[in-house]
Amino acid sequence: MQKIVECVPNFSEGKDLKTINSIFDAAKSVKSVRVFELEYNKDHNRCLFTIVGKPEDVLSSAYESIKTATKLIDMEKHKGEHPRIGATDVVPFTPVSGVAMEECVELANKLGKKVGEELGIPVFLYEEAAARPENRNLADVRKGEYEGLKVKMNKPDFGPSEMHPTAGAVVVGARKYLVAFNVNLDTHDIEIAKKIAGVIREKNGGLAGLKALGFEVDGMAQVSMNLVDYEKNNFDDAYRAVETEAGKMGITIKSSEIYGMIPLESLVGAVKTTFKADTFKSDQVLEKRLYE
Amino acid sequence: MQKIVECVPNFSEGKDLKTINSIFDAAKSVKSVRVFELEYNKDHNRCLFTIVGKPEDVLSSAYESIKTATKLIDMEKHKGEHPRIGATDVVPFTPVSGVAMEECVELANKLGKKVGEELGIPVFLYEEAAARPENRNLADVRKGEYEGLKVKMNKPDFGPSEMHPTAGAVVVGARKYLVAFNVNLDTHDIEIAKKIAGVIREKNGGLAGLKALGFEVDGMAQVSMNLVDYEKNNFDDAYRAVETEAGKMGITIKSSEIYGMIPLESLVGAVKTTFKADTFKSDQVLEKRLYE
Repeated sequence: MQKIVECVPNFSEGKDLKTINSIFDAAKSVKSVRVFELEYNKDHNRCLFTIVGKPEDVLSSAYESIKTATKLIDMEKHKGEHPRIGATDVVPFTPVSGVAMEECVELANKLGKKVGEELGIPVFLYEEAAARPENRNLADVRKGEYEGLKVKMNKPDFGPSEMHPTAGAVVVGARKYLVAFNVNLDTHDIEIAKKIAGVIREKNGGLAGLKALGFEVDGMAQVSMNLVDYEKNNFDDAYRAVETEAGKMGITIKSSEIYGMIPLESLVGAVKTTFKADTFKSDQVLEKRLYE
Repeated sequence: MQKIVECVPNFSEGKDLKTINSIFDAAKSVKSVRVFELEYNKDHNRCLFTIVGKPEDVLSSAYESIKTATKLIDMEKHKGEHPRIGATDVVPFTPVSGVAMEECVELANKLGKKVGEELGIPVFLYEEAAARPENRNLADVRKGEYEGLKVKMNKPDFGPSEMHPTAGAVVVGARKYLVAFNVNLDTHDIEIAKKIAGVIREKNGGLAGLKALGFEVDGMAQVSMNLVDYEKNNFDDAYRAVETEAGKMGITIKSSEIYGMIPLESLVGAVKTTFKADTFKSDQVLEKRLYE
């Protein structure tokens, strides 16, 4: 089986299309990978895309995009609703096929070392790649954000011990597939979204593997979620949790948005739960079987 | 883009594994196609599988399986809950990729002619391939079943004007992708399943593209559905319709079963409806993009 790894680098630019496209094109300059699903959001002031291919090629592609983001993004001028610590904010490697988590941890270390040494940016390793237990959780590494880390920063895993003057710091790691799922409420009251997010997130005793924040996007209150372990809690579980909490306040769900790329298994899992279809499996999806 | 066609032949044997496997192996004797998802059900006394590949290769594979079923199945001894008129009961061709419906109609005609002439079995063309409007609907062609057609049969489109002595007749056609979806009720009262099926099926003013029958399977009342046009009504619509009608009688849904292969688009459609995720598209599914 061919080894396939995914990498979804996140950059702190969600408005300037020229910069966004330059970063995207830099990733695509490595011809042996597929780079797609460029997404950007001006409220979050953030963009991200997906790189898929053989492990070493994905590493090269990610590096090229980071190098370009370092040149083009000035964190001194950056404002956005989403937490961030650098021009390239976070770079996770994820196993897709024929690759163990350990191999993604190695990739994270290799990229981290290269970014630290060649671009002069402090690099923190997180989640499965974390060298220190206190850095496992991305939110902890990002605490204080760009502005706070400029004042006081822990020793990074690679690179200089001070923030890069314009690019800040980068978090690199390895993790399970992260599914981004936003649910929009039939209200513009952001406090309601924040309250729901606070109740349903794992951290506060909510759903396992669920991270949630409340935003206002396009005039709607949005519960923006990351499903960190879709085998434990999937679209269905997250949607129902939001629906239940919103219902207690007399609010209904207006729409939802599956953000970026998702693995087929996460879709299959949601359908199984929704329709009590326990026997359903991804091998029943024609497109999967055609190319085995 | 490579031309891909699907064919799901249905045979009147759901108990004898030796016969079932012989028919399955005959289809696989054409090496250039993929043959998978052999399914059989002893209550229906029926089996089916999926052939996928280039149009002409799929035709050859289907023909080999029909030839074997003609040798091994004796309709004089056949009993089963599912309507049927022959050893090979129905053989639909379906466009999957890069193929227009017209091309599947041509395939149906080619296969029908071959089965009629070489195997001496009367062949009726149905749905998109129907040569006469009264044969469009499979249920109409199958009216009277094997036993009835032995007594009185309309002129077939290909082959002899009398039933084959042991293999009966065959229905061959072209159609849109048919999704098989069974919903099991928390009751063993088959009358409730039949009542629900009667209300929700298109024929009686229910959901467009929905065919439904009530069965008892493994001691559960089952609403067995075919979604003939999943772009109009998908898993979600069908499930909710059963749920609503069952609820009126105080019955709940115990489980559901997606039967056989389904196209990725049908999953994507269901998820869009269920989670009000209007912007979601199949291109967001990683596995689809990897092999484009």
